[in-house]
Amino acid sequence: MALLLSTIHTPADLRRLKPTALTDLSAELREYIIAQCSENPGHLGASLGVVELTVALHYVFNTPHDKLIWDVGHQAYAHKILTGRRALFPTNRCYGGLSGFPKRSESEYDAFGGGHASVSVSAALGIATAARLQGVAQQTIAVIGDGALTGGLAYEGLNNAGASQANVLVVLNDNNISIDRNVGAIHNYLVKMTTSARYNRVKRKVWDFFGNNCVRRAVQNFVTTAKIALLRRSNLFEALGFRYFGPLDGHDIGQLTKTLQALKDIDGPKVLHVITTKGKGYKPAEENQTEWHAPGKYDRKTGERLSQGGASRYQDVFGETIVELATRNEKIVGITPAMPTGCSLNLMMEQMPDRTFDVGIAEEHAVTFAAGLAAAGLLPFCNIYSSFMQRAYDQVIHDVALQNLQVVFCLDRSGLVGEDGPTHHGAYDMACFRSIPNLIIAAPMDELELRNMLYTAQLSGMGPTMIRYPRGRGAGLSWRQAFSAIEIGKARRLHEGSEAAVLSIGDAGRLAAAAIERLAAENRGVAHYDMRFLKPVDEAVLHEVGRRFRQVITVENGAIIGGLGGAAAEFFSEHTYPVKLTRLGIPDRFAGQGSIAQLQAECGFDAEHIYRTIREAL
Amino acid sequence: MALLLSTIHTPADLRRLKPTALTDLSAELREYIIAQCSENPGHLGASLGVVELTVALHYVFNTPHDKLIWDVGHQAYAHKILTGRRALFPTNRCYGGLSGFPKRSESEYDAFGGGHASVSVSAALGIATAARLQGVAQQTIAVIGDGALTGGLAYEGLNNAGASQANVLVVLNDNNISIDRNVGAIHNYLVKMTTSARYNRVKRKVWDFFGNNCVRRAVQNFVTTAKIALLRRSNLFEALGFRYFGPLDGHDIGQLTKTLQALKDIDGPKVLHVITTKGKGYKPAEENQTEWHAPGKYDRKTGERLSQGGASRYQDVFGETIVELATRNEKIVGITPAMPTGCSLNLMMEQMPDRTFDVGIAEEHAVTFAAGLAAAGLLPFCNIYSSFMQRAYDQVIHDVALQNLQVVFCLDRSGLVGEDGPTHHGAYDMACFRSIPNLIIAAPMDELELRNMLYTAQLSGMGPTMIRYPRGRGAGLSWRQAFSAIEIGKARRLHEGSEAAVLSIGDAGRLAAAAIERLAAENRGVAHYDMRFLKPVDEAVLHEVGRRFRQVITVENGAIIGGLGGAAAEFFSEHTYPVKLTRLGIPDRFAGQGSIAQLQAECGFDAEHIYRTIREAL
Repeated sequence: MALLLSTIHTPADLRRLKPTALTDLSAELREYIIAQCSENPGHLGASLGVVELTVALHYVFNTPHDKLIWDVGHQAYAHKILTGRRALFPTNRCYGGLSGFPKRSESEYDAFGGGHASVSVSAALGIATAARLQGVAQQTIAVIGDGALTGGLAYEGLNNAGASQANVLVVLNDNNISIDRNVGAIHNYLVKMTTSARYNRVKRKVWDFFGNNCVRRAVQNFVTTAKIALLRRSNLFEALGFRYFGPLDGHDIGQLTKTLQALKDIDGPKVLHVITTKGKGYKPAEENQTEWHAPGKYDRKTGERLSQGGASRYQDVFGETIVELATRNEKIVGITPAMPTGCSLNLMMEQMPDRTFDVGIAEEHAVTFAAGLAAAGLLPFCNIYSSFMQRAYDQVIHDVALQNLQVVFCLDRSGLVGEDGPTHHGAYDMACFRSIPNLIIAAPMDELELRNMLYTAQLSGMGPTMIRYPRGRGAGLSWRQAFSAIEIGKARRLHEGSEAAVLSIGDAGRLAAAAIERLAAENRGVAHYDMRFLKPVDEAVLHEVGRRFRQVITVENGAIIGGLGGAAAEFFSEHTYPVKLTRLGIPDRFAGQGSIAQLQAECGFDAEHIYRTIREAL
Repeated sequence: MALLLSTIHTPADLRRLKPTALTDLSAELREYIIAQCSENPGHLGASLGVVELTVALHYVFNTPHDKLIWDVGHQAYAHKILTGRRALFPTNRCYGGLSGFPKRSESEYDAFGGGHASVSVSAALGIATAARLQGVAQQTIAVIGDGALTGGLAYEGLNNAGASQANVLVVLNDNNISIDRNVGAIHNYLVKMTTSARYNRVKRKVWDFFGNNCVRRAVQNFVTTAKIALLRRSNLFEALGFRYFGPLDGHDIGQLTKTLQALKDIDGPKVLHVITTKGKGYKPAEENQTEWHAPGKYDRKTGERLSQGGASRYQDVFGETIVELATRNEKIVGITPAMPTGCSLNLMMEQMPDRTFDVGIAEEHAVTFAAGLAAAGLLPFCNIYSSFMQRAYDQVIHDVALQNLQVVFCLDRSGLVGEDGPTHHGAYDMACFRSIPNLIIAAPMDELELRNMLYTAQLSGMGPTMIRYPRGRGAGLSWRQAFSAIEIGKARRLHEGSEAAVLSIGDAGRLAAAAIERLAAENRGVAHYDMRFLKPVDEAVLHEVGRRFRQVITVENGAIIGGLGGAAAEFFSEHTYPVKLTRLGIPDRFAGQGSIAQLQAECGFDAEHIYRTIREAL
């Protein structure tokens, strides 16, 4: 087992193999990924889908001289294993271990890092353009999924690459799914392309042609090249200035290597359309692609997923609550950019398909579409992960807040997200949205608060409202209770004390509460206020705190700069309260990866650090 | 003169005219716009280009019941004049007057407001979807330029609209230009479409067909409809799920009204491709479309533009300086999203076309493309207006700052921009980027500082750097001097005093300096520090200020929340300096429109307010 794989230390080793060995190597790679991910959870499905493609790309192209850019990047496990990181792969996504995404500082084979979608074409165009300007002969390849293709950034990249002479190969990894099923016109278009009778008639001719041994000579001949293009045309990609090749079976490694080899000699922007199966080669993952996108631990033999029990997930509190609210309030509609399962809007989608919109990976559109719905009298709940909401910063300002439209933004995955690491932490939402007029910004400390904030946000007369809540599970409260409105801008006092005050917002308040309980057991009296609203901030409470306390500690699961700590600092210095303010949260560096508890400790706002900070202040 | 126009108080009046009167009405409208804009500057060119289209849309559609959404919106002058705002049009863009853009709070005919590009399709889809869900029979029309079509948001909107059954008509106003000439594959595609022999052969048939009197009955017939579609196909729009009609002469009002009438009966998403001429009907504006995009005041008879003399514009300091720097440093490349003339990168473009990239309206791509260039060893200067940089917030974080790439972001039009109003103020850049790790954020107080900051940012070893500077003219310094590096994070003291300290950043420092001079004349000693860097902030200076002063006033041309004032507040409260901090800048509401001086006064940071604030503090 893994006889071939153990000989591959770099892609140069791979390139010494005979073509016939690549199928066996792919099988070994796949087995290794399946085995590793069963114990050390990761993005299994996407990585299994591109095993052959990864082998073929490194086999044909001269990496790292040639530049390979993985869009989203969670599919790059085989790439990591083949590029010198096999031994480290068991640390994938762990604290201090390999990143679950390409990372420039980790390997020269990671030409461009990242974890957000739709980036690769623009990055590849930049890299290819730099090579041209510097006179470097180099191939640049972007591998992008059909899901990521729905993002506006991908289109902007294609529009520019297609008008350039840049030598960019875009490999469209078409597996028909993001995390949930893909949607939109492009999706329909690709499905039609790959299922049409004409495709099936034409396909054989194309690959017969590429199968020809003199293919390299042939494609260098312009006339012949033109003929290839004529065999199969893509309206879409040709309109965008690309030459189109495909579709091709992305698990047929012989076809892949031959085709990629041929494409090396075709200059300019080109698309190779490759059909793959997410979860390929592992039956449970193929059969339930959404659940096996990132399945957690599982029994490799039986395919049984090893579930973690516990409190309700915040996302499910959202998902169940919005169904209840929408049942009572017919103006409510739900929007998600490609995350129905991830944010649990799928619960509403099942019951009210007409009123629920998965818009694909398209955060900008999600927000402006919501603004349009609100302008016409509906009440959209737009659920976007915090780090992806960075994509729609302008739309929140320009289309929603400026027009003061009642849109409810639900920012799931706010704060530290754990193993996905720096690309996915929702660190900046509070800091960047606090300065936007008209916005109400709330963060619940537990499930019940989330439920009631969702309820409050849909009451009539409210303006644009943002509710941020974290990844993972709540406090274990029995939250399925009757709704209760929360007064906007009203904090609550959770603990009384006279020696110092802790102001917290959101789930970090539970860490603060634990620290304060510990201090109480030591007979130290520390007051605890759950601010609940970053904006409008409860000025009455801040006045009270400013008058009563000299030592104040803010705690938040977000960037220290500009968030709750910033709001408190602005208030105290404006009103000349001589408060010593200590701000805890995510410091001014990109937080790493690992368990959320590890990262809280690293950032310095776990219960232990909060306890020690208060102790020092007393 | 203007006999017809004076009878049109609402579109209902317009709809009572005979079709034959519409040409005369259009001529009157055009004359009125030309006359008004000659005295009260505005977006002349775009509005002249859509006069006939505007008349036709309101003639055919039942506005305001039917919803009309103008992308970007600066072309909506005829729309405003026809919808009850003719008498107010002389106040266009003035303080307290009509907005230069559609604005929901201004008129029920403005179905969706805004001034940023590429928004209309998403907004229209939202509005049309809401109508469907609420059982309202309604037409929804988005008018989008070919320039705005390059923005990713437009594509995300099309991708979703095309897969829906929504009854949305997208009118593609193809005038081949944004402010500068359009670029990109879509642009090439549209040019090819409208100039091909096949188009000219087919065009006549299409419009002969639409010219038929029984057209409405005919298009209700599916077979016939299918034939229309077959007459002319667009690969691009059909791939996106739209039915395509056109191209059509956008100044032929007879064809326009007939076609729009026919399209009313075709359900689902559809595109009408209309060819217009920017500046149509006013010879100087047609002949030099870039200069006449927003020409300022002009002599209506002679076409002479009445120039304002004065100090150098900040944009020209950028434009000239980058040419000098790029001449000396071959790694430097320049990027602009569709604003070469607006940001003066055209100066570099003329001299170094290979090293200058106009990427079209595509801010997200501009930033990620820059990241790709930097990853491959070049040194991109990416110039984006502050309010448009909101579009690329995620890309700055995820693609540049996280990878710590040396990209120089030049944020022109930062702070208050004047007559363009709330959609265009660059109010939030300092607040939203201050919390991002690795970023250096600088703001020059004058031309010379800008020049030297640009020089400093390209020195080797620097990380990602953001330089923000305002619209308009500098202090009148002779800035064409030898370069001098600025120490990163180093403030400078401009004035000494012991009674209070003013901390300013950027051009607002000149207002503060004037106030402090006035106080000095009254023998009041106020210290003035030009912070220069928001990040890293000069902590030595803040310590000095915290030790020496009890009264501190911050002044910045940006949102009060979270900017320099926020940084100072965080510092003082962390270090327990008992400072009374007064923060001046753009308050927590959307600033309006008017001259920059008027808006500075409204916001409370003109020299007079600064003077009074300091006086009160003393």
